[in-house]
Amino acid sequence: MAMTAREIAALVGSTIGFDGELRCVAAPADASVDTIVFAQDEDALREAVASAAGLILARAGAVGGGADDSRVVRVADPKYAFALCARALAGEPEAAVHPMAVVDPSARLGERVRVGAGAVIEAGAVLGDDVSIGSNATICQGVEIGSRVVVLQGAVLGSTGFGYARNAATGEYLLFPQQGRLVVEDDVEIGANTTIDRGALGETRIGRGTKIDNLVHIGHNCRIGRNVVIAAQVGISGSCVVEDGAVLAGQVGLGDHCRIGPGVILGGQGGVFPGKSVDGPGQVFAGTPAEPRADYLKSIAVVRRLRDQKAKR
Amino acid sequence: MAMTAREIAALVGSTIGFDGELRCVAAPADASVDTIVFAQDEDALREAVASAAGLILARAGAVGGGADDSRVVRVADPKYAFALCARALAGEPEAAVHPMAVVDPSARLGERVRVGAGAVIEAGAVLGDDVSIGSNATICQGVEIGSRVVVLQGAVLGSTGFGYARNAATGEYLLFPQQGRLVVEDDVEIGANTTIDRGALGETRIGRGTKIDNLVHIGHNCRIGRNVVIAAQVGISGSCVVEDGAVLAGQVGLGDHCRIGPGVILGGQGGVFPGKSVDGPGQVFAGTPAEPRADYLKSIAVVRRLRDQKAKR
Amino acid sequence: MAMTAREIAALVGSTIGFDGELRCVAAPADASVDTIVFAQDEDALREAVASAAGLILARAGAVGGGADDSRVVRVADPKYAFALCARALAGEPEAAVHPMAVVDPSARLGERVRVGAGAVIEAGAVLGDDVSIGSNATICQGVEIGSRVVVLQGAVLGSTGFGYARNAATGEYLLFPQQGRLVVEDDVEIGANTTIDRGALGETRIGRGTKIDNLVHIGHNCRIGRNVVIAAQVGISGSCVVEDGAVLAGQVGLGDHCRIGPGVILGGQGGVFPGKSVDGPGQVFAGTPAEPRADYLKSIAVVRRLRDQKAKR
Repeated sequence: MAMTAREIAALVGSTIGFDGELRCVAAPADASVDTIVFAQDEDALREAVASAAGLILARAGAVGGGADDSRVVRVADPKYAFALCARALAGEPEAAVHPMAVVDPSARLGERVRVGAGAVIEAGAVLGDDVSIGSNATICQGVEIGSRVVVLQGAVLGSTGFGYARNAATGEYLLFPQQGRLVVEDDVEIGANTTIDRGALGETRIGRGTKIDNLVHIGHNCRIGRNVVIAAQVGISGSCVVEDGAVLAGQVGLGDHCRIGPGVILGGQGGVFPGKSVDGPGQVFAGTPAEPRADYLKSIAVVRRLRDQKAKR
Repeated sequence: MAMTAREIAALVGSTIGFDGELRCVAAPADASVDTIVFAQDEDALREAVASAAGLILARAGAVGGGADDSRVVRVADPKYAFALCARALAGEPEAAVHPMAVVDPSARLGERVRVGAGAVIEAGAVLGDDVSIGSNATICQGVEIGSRVVVLQGAVLGSTGFGYARNAATGEYLLFPQQGRLVVEDDVEIGANTTIDRGALGETRIGRGTKIDNLVHIGHNCRIGRNVVIAAQVGISGSCVVEDGAVLAGQVGLGDHCRIGPGVILGGQGGVFPGKSVDGPGQVFAGTPAEPRADYLKSIAVVRRLRDQKAKR
Repeated sequence: MAMTAREIAALVGSTIGFDGELRCVAAPADASVDTIVFAQDEDALREAVASAAGLILARAGAVGGGADDSRVVRVADPKYAFALCARALAGEPEAAVHPMAVVDPSARLGERVRVGAGAVIEAGAVLGDDVSIGSNATICQGVEIGSRVVVLQGAVLGSTGFGYARNAATGEYLLFPQQGRLVVEDDVEIGANTTIDRGALGETRIGRGTKIDNLVHIGHNCRIGRNVVIAAQVGISGSCVVEDGAVLAGQVGLGDHCRIGPGVILGGQGGVFPGKSVDGPGQVFAGTPAEPRADYLKSIAVVRRLRDQKAKR
């Protein structure tokens, strides 16, 4: 798809003094005359101006580094504007159910749904409009998925939760009923080979706009808020609550019945003990058990100093 | 499926003073007259009695909270009884090989086996009776699976192990032969996207009644005992032994050739160094390297106290 | 396939005083007259000599333990020689695209490629000669795979990376363009249910001879060197560099933009903070944040000593 420079400028809420056709986005090194690039700082702007790019997205207040180049379009957030342009130029993805996908006759699919080869949509699942299900992904029976949701390859949504009742006499485990629902709200994106369990009796819910990376596990009856970011290999045990806007970095682990407050940022490999709460909007936590990152770093420093003192004696 | 209240009471080894049809289990909030609910404590019992549920499973010794309600059936373990009722009411799941599953002609399937769409059963695999293989799961060649085993969506059983011989001159790695077996005993349940490798020369074995959550990795030549519980994202390196009744919480990691003693409980994110043993039935261990949980918590407290003292000076 | 003892001896660069047919490799306990076994030390050699094996690979300098047995073939590295023999005896695996695999017409496959049932090769993907793609694996569009690459069951290569631009006003996330490539060089082996993302604007690259275990995550724009070993459940965030010959043990986590130097060994569950570098060929690092293993162990000892002193008072 192609857009003119003036259409692009209008899209990102700015203006430009020339017109020409733009067809793609790229890094400066790969740019040609029909290419949009972006520059977050002055160094990047210098590199962009030196490239063959046809249009350069730069910060509104940028001076120096080539900010007076006629190809420069000034915006508040060049990276965000660049992502907007990329989406506009990509156009609509081809919407089709691959002939080698398996969609149960009782599943209901919205408009313009894309289902990849080998994907399985089980009985009673409901998908909104413009949903994309990747190859070899599985949407288990009865799962409800909103609009514009993207599920990558190999993900499993709505699997049986991991809850058991133990026979005290024999030590054997009996599956606790796992008959609840999984609801995935609009604009959620879910990574490759990620698994999200259905509720046991109630529901598991992933809030609108939340983004989930690859190989993440989310247990039964969790409630994940809106615009939450969950990086790769995070593990969230059953019945956790993660409030709106929280960010969980890679390999974070939450015990069951935890609560992560709105806007909390939890650093990589951090852990929260079962039943505990972590709170403080915009605050960064780290370590296991998670504590404010500044404290976490001080603890490390204290131990290392002590160790080195012992070594000297 | 429906059962009478008297049939339910008999199933859980108790009695009831009325009769009526029960058709499902649910949480009190979702209960109606044909629904069974359970109450582990007095608060829950009060909630259950206030609901429309037709039958309430409560502790044998419970007093107060509505324990004299005529719908109450007294049992030793209400949660366990509830799970028993759920299984009885669910009836037999529909047993069928989905037309879009791929079962190699040389694989042998027992009675009443269920294979989901997109699942692959490779050459020479053997499945016992009442086995359920989820959509898009893969049972690799020659894997032996007992009766009543449940394998969830996307799991891979019997993959090539990760063992190499290094060429000292070139630094290149050559696959060590991975020609052994994987044996999964009766009543094992295996989560979505979990991977279990076959043995290199010998076998990998998962003992009877063991339950494994999503995204778990079990390496070649491991021997996992009976009634072991392995939570999500646990990683077990090659040649480990996990004895009967052990519990590994989420994201635990075992180096190769570890041994976890019978009944040991290892807390979330805990780690065991290669070749080490952790022992003590019913004892809880935590941290990396794993130590008794009380010691682990004391270590954390000691470091934090020291850190805060430094801060004050 | 069968080979004579003299052919085997020649293959491993040694000699033998008799001839006979060998057909397989095994552990001593499972060996018969047509079987090759190996012995890394004297104890193992004693066990091998006591077995029915037809040929025994032992260290060149080995004395005692039965080193004078006529079946013994002396080599520099018995384990490596054993792996060589196993490969030679295995012969060529059956190369075929399973009728239930899905290969897009625009994908290009080399000679003798094997594709398992349920595997999906998307548009424009390119596979070299002698590549093996396991059942239910997904090779996403445009991924380039070299020769002799092995991809196990359920792996996803070339999935959309996890990069977003945040709308500062609304808190919503917009996908940053993920239009780059994934290049997998010759002789790479990739484990079951592992996920590797394509580049955002540039490329993700896995270097020649690198071996990757199950459930590993490698983010967009990473550059993994040659003959790197990456154990199960390792997580590598975007834009990391792992140099040639490095070894990452199980559950290691790297923040984004990390660099792991050539030949570095990083112990299980170790973590590296975003943007940090770990360097020192052949040196072993451990813990989070990773430090030389000797220091890591001293830190643990110091804390435990302090804790036990407190307890005594």
